Amino acid sequence: MRIAVFGGDGFVGWPTCLHLSNAGHEITIVDNLSRRRIDTELGVQSLTPMDSIQERLRIWKNVSGRTMRFELLDIAEEYTRVKLWLDQYRPDALIHLAQQRAAPYSMKNDRSKTYTVNNNVAATHNLLSALVELELDTHFVHLGTMGVYGYSDVGATIPEGYLDVKIPADDGTDFQRQILYPTNPNSVYHLTKCLDQLMFAFYASNDLLRITDLHQGVVWGTHTDQTRRHEQLVNRFDYDGDYGTVLNRFLIQAAVKHPLTVHGTGGQTRAFIHIQDSVRCIEIAVNNPPAHGDRPKIFNQMTETFRIRDLAKLVSDMSGVEIINLPNPRKEADENDLKVSNKQLLELGLEPVTLRVGMLEELVHVAQKYAHRIDQSKIPAQSAWTHELQSKISSVVDISTAKRKR
Amino acid sequence: MRIAVFGGDGFVGWPTCLHLSNAGHEITIVDNLSRRRIDTELGVQSLTPMDSIQERLRIWKNVSGRTMRFELLDIAEEYTRVKLWLDQYRPDALIHLAQQRAAPYSMKNDRSKTYTVNNNVAATHNLLSALVELELDTHFVHLGTMGVYGYSDVGATIPEGYLDVKIPADDGTDFQRQILYPTNPNSVYHLTKCLDQLMFAFYASNDLLRITDLHQGVVWGTHTDQTRRHEQLVNRFDYDGDYGTVLNRFLIQAAVKHPLTVHGTGGQTRAFIHIQDSVRCIEIAVNNPPAHGDRPKIFNQMTETFRIRDLAKLVSDMSGVEIINLPNPRKEADENDLKVSNKQLLELGLEPVTLRVGMLEELVHVAQKYAHRIDQSKIPAQSAWTHELQSKISSVVDISTAKRKR
Repeated sequence: MRIAVFGGDGFVGWPTCLHLSNAGHEITIVDNLSRRRIDTELGVQSLTPMDSIQERLRIWKNVSGRTMRFELLDIAEEYTRVKLWLDQYRPDALIHLAQQRAAPYSMKNDRSKTYTVNNNVAATHNLLSALVELELDTHFVHLGTMGVYGYSDVGATIPEGYLDVKIPADDGTDFQRQILYPTNPNSVYHLTKCLDQLMFAFYASNDLLRITDLHQGVVWGTHTDQTRRHEQLVNRFDYDGDYGTVLNRFLIQAAVKHPLTVHGTGGQTRAFIHIQDSVRCIEIAVNNPPAHGDRPKIFNQMTETFRIRDLAKLVSDMSGVEIINLPNPRKEADENDLKVSNKQLLELGLEPVTLRVGMLEELVHVAQKYAHRIDQSKIPAQSAWTHELQSKISSVVDISTAKRKR
Repeated sequence: MRIAVFGGDGFVGWPTCLHLSNAGHEITIVDNLSRRRIDTELGVQSLTPMDSIQERLRIWKNVSGRTMRFELLDIAEEYTRVKLWLDQYRPDALIHLAQQRAAPYSMKNDRSKTYTVNNNVAATHNLLSALVELELDTHFVHLGTMGVYGYSDVGATIPEGYLDVKIPADDGTDFQRQILYPTNPNSVYHLTKCLDQLMFAFYASNDLLRITDLHQGVVWGTHTDQTRRHEQLVNRFDYDGDYGTVLNRFLIQAAVKHPLTVHGTGGQTRAFIHIQDSVRCIEIAVNNPPAHGDRPKIFNQMTETFRIRDLAKLVSDMSGVEIINLPNPRKEADENDLKVSNKQLLELGLEPVTLRVGMLEELVHVAQKYAHRIDQSKIPAQSAWTHELQSKISSVVDISTAKRKR
């Protein structure tokens, strides 16, 4: 298959490209390298030393014999070039990962909020619009987020995208409908993925585009079968307060023997998936497109749920590092349940890597191996959801900095 | 009250500003004059001769003694200037009408689709983001559309924004929720108003902004009590295939004795409201903000529903002009029901102007009065929802042009 991977230089994008190239597909990475620019903006870098995309492609060619191409293109800003490029490349499938993907970054300030909305919406819509205008029959696979759902209602499992409801008629009876799950985003980033869903529903209906939306949980892990093949193929590992996920923060803190910082009670439940499973799911999605005229196909791309405090305990037990509680910079419930259906991917053959099994490798072979590259000042979450929360966490961040200096 | 009217130079914006200025409010119009630019782009003009915004303000000052100010500002493109301006003006309420508002224009081609999405989303989000960043307690009043709902389910009246549903729990019982009405937009324009709704829900929840969203029907009529006060205060009247509404098309065709062109069977039901009622509704909304922490308040801003063929018959009976049927450029059901609740505005005192009463004035005092300014080649709807529909209507448009030349 000829596949265009938009955002193929990012954390999920890069191992996805390797995985699909390894499986024999023709891959072109289209990326504006914005993730690297944001690293520069924030003064942070991947824990794992990361080469340029061009160098990565050279190594992959040497290791595998397979060629992947790279196209520098900003799909949000350069509509005409996107259209020209798609008209030439005419992919069978495109994978759309070209969005600003960190919730804390999206809530940092008005600059990051407006950037996230304008970039993410334009990126998605430009691709949809170009496919329609060019009359291309390309399967559109998008990485969404479990965050579109918010948390599950008490006693009801979150289905895969569509919810059965009963609606009251005027005569007092009920009738059945299946509707897009009502969204409840917790950040501007998550909001953009809700906006994406409505655009997908429209273009699938009006233009019969074939669209798959993958509502992914928190991705953890660094290595896949392909990134292991050469040190320079390593995936990025983000541990800074904006782009680092909660598990990465714990692993890094364990590696440097800093207390594991749990925000609030740690009673928030999140969905997780290993990067190896993530790339397998994307492959499964690419191989199973919906039919023309179908509504968008939605998968819940996650394999486990954990409460944050249970996750902290796992890492603490493994590393002997204690847990401390800090104020939560996010505006969210202290405790939440999350029951999620992911049966479509399991039925299509996914065999999940579990946190209990994979986390030790991550601690030893990634966090501890590269511990000398850790800048501890970058670990705390400093981006708050409101001005009020900002002032609460700012004082604590100062204390934590003071403590580290002792 | 100090009120900023974004998009105050447009069809709804201008009479809204006059109405609120007349009621004693301090009004500043903020507009990028894009509606006039699009007229130029399409080679069309308002049937009613329309002066510059500056000239209109001079006349209003002479007629009423009241001053309104004008600020040339593109709220989608100039975020920093928007923020600076809001920080200085600090309005009690803002009315957001600054969006591309024609469904046919939004479906014309990829240029108009991407413009509509990028402009409309950025316009809304920039205002929201600036209010949060500045910590302004401004009531945000937005003009949405009935088109977010699509059409009503058989036997169920469309409620005002929120729908009661029963959701099945895992144990087989149902529980009740009130959700944002599931959207079913029929064009890229309507889609953007669905995106707006999700942004409003997020900012009302995360930042406690007070937001009112007015889901308006098709607006008809030209004059309000204020536009009647001087010929140069007249509102715009669009009759071209992109911006002219169905009723305007019929009135113009009646004025020049051209057959009334009904698309498809004319079985589509639409919601309508007179411009005089529209500006009153906006005033009611401004005077009745939600509380901090409330979800967005949603009104259905419409007063009547009509099937298109019944509307055509009304105009035909009034004018003696025959009706003909043409292929529908829109992708939509041939026949649809539309039952809508609008009880909130009625309870707050709205007394509607009805089509049966007001349409004759519109025919005589607008369409026939300015009939010498009609360019008949601009009347047909030429923007189709898909490439397939485009080829169907193109042939018919040619025939109609040929007929006119005889």
